[in-house]
Amino acid sequence: MAVIWTVKAIGLGVVAFSLSLELFAWLGRRLRPVRSCNEVLFFPSELACVERIFNPTSPFTCLCSLPHDVETSFSRLLRHILSASSSLDLCVFAFSNMDLGRAILVLHSKGVTIRVLTDKDYAAINGSQIGVLRKAGICVRCDVGSVYMHHKFAVVDGRLLITGSLNWTLQAVQGNMENIIITDEPDLLHPFIKEFNRLWVLNDPAQHHRPAHC
Amino acid sequence: MAVIWTVKAIGLGVVAFSLSLELFAWLGRRLRPVRSCNEVLFFPSELACVERIFNPTSPFTCLCSLPHDVETSFSRLLRHILSASSSLDLCVFAFSNMDLGRAILVLHSKGVTIRVLTDKDYAAINGSQIGVLRKAGICVRCDVGSVYMHHKFAVVDGRLLITGSLNWTLQAVQGNMENIIITDEPDLLHPFIKEFNRLWVLNDPAQHHRPAHC
Repeated sequence: MAVIWTVKAIGLGVVAFSLSLELFAWLGRRLRPVRSCNEVLFFPSELACVERIFNPTSPFTCLCSLPHDVETSFSRLLRHILSASSSLDLCVFAFSNMDLGRAILVLHSKGVTIRVLTDKDYAAINGSQIGVLRKAGICVRCDVGSVYMHHKFAVVDGRLLITGSLNWTLQAVQGNMENIIITDEPDLLHPFIKEFNRLWVLNDPAQHHRPAHC
Repeated sequence: MAVIWTVKAIGLGVVAFSLSLELFAWLGRRLRPVRSCNEVLFFPSELACVERIFNPTSPFTCLCSLPHDVETSFSRLLRHILSASSSLDLCVFAFSNMDLGRAILVLHSKGVTIRVLTDKDYAAINGSQIGVLRKAGICVRCDVGSVYMHHKFAVVDGRLLITGSLNWTLQAVQGNMENIIITDEPDLLHPFIKEFNRLWVLNDPAQHHRPAHC
């Protein structure tokens, strides 16, 4: 009789132990943070055709002389920008890259809310995409200070930070040695969201008696 | 008899369950990652005296007219740079800020291994700190390409990445709107370490039949 109960007691202990193992494994799966995004891109980027990124379902193949279906730093950057589904906040010193301008126009045409903060001196130079964006009805504000608005960051859907040394110019993408970080790490992302909103209000033309740009 | 054994069986089950709880709690403590460093600094920085950062144990109080014992974005940046104990790899487009130059010289005098990569055009202009660093015996290499070496990052002791839009100039620190990220996130840190080493070898003057700078 005692032997049977000893076996039962040990059996119950084993069951309790295995149940607790399963419980902790389940809790571990539930509580494990979602895999975060941390990516670093270096430039200059290799040259490659980006038509497929703008028209992924098109039946037509681009016939340009650039390499096709090649993933580059620039194509990765474009994909992250084009992943915006609700908002894109862009704070960039120099913006003259036509492919990046096209990406912003594509997002705007899809109803993504775009806010652009840029440097007032660079916005006025030849080749700047800022005029193109304004003509399309995109909300653009220029810094009102006497110094440079030297940031080069974007926030996609309030969930993804894109920041680094890279201005949105052709020379930066194809010529210079540059870097871009793409991250959804909250400790990095949230200060940039807060700073964008602060600068957006600070540079509201209505507060400075200047013509509104949006 | 049966009742006693039932109590024993349940008791053993409870003991097994509580032991497994303790085991998992211990494992959780052992396996928990060390708290990571993720900090964002925005500029322009408030003006403040930085003497206390360079001489934290000095009995003398600086008598300059700037605010003292005020933590600013620039003082945070200085502290992170001065935390280097074995190595500092610096890859920066423009370097003319004298306080940052002083920080590098202090680290060099303490035996920290310094490697500086910079843009060849900017290194030659008036006010650049690059000549001062070279005269002190610090190893400096300039990019050999025709484009800009536009990075602005540093790696402290191979454990901390400092990167952003901020050039190491007085205007960037005190005038412009800029950002700096400080992180030890491996997914961000390691690509920068790899890129620095790649650029360091790529710009080795011995490979380009130019005079060595270190």
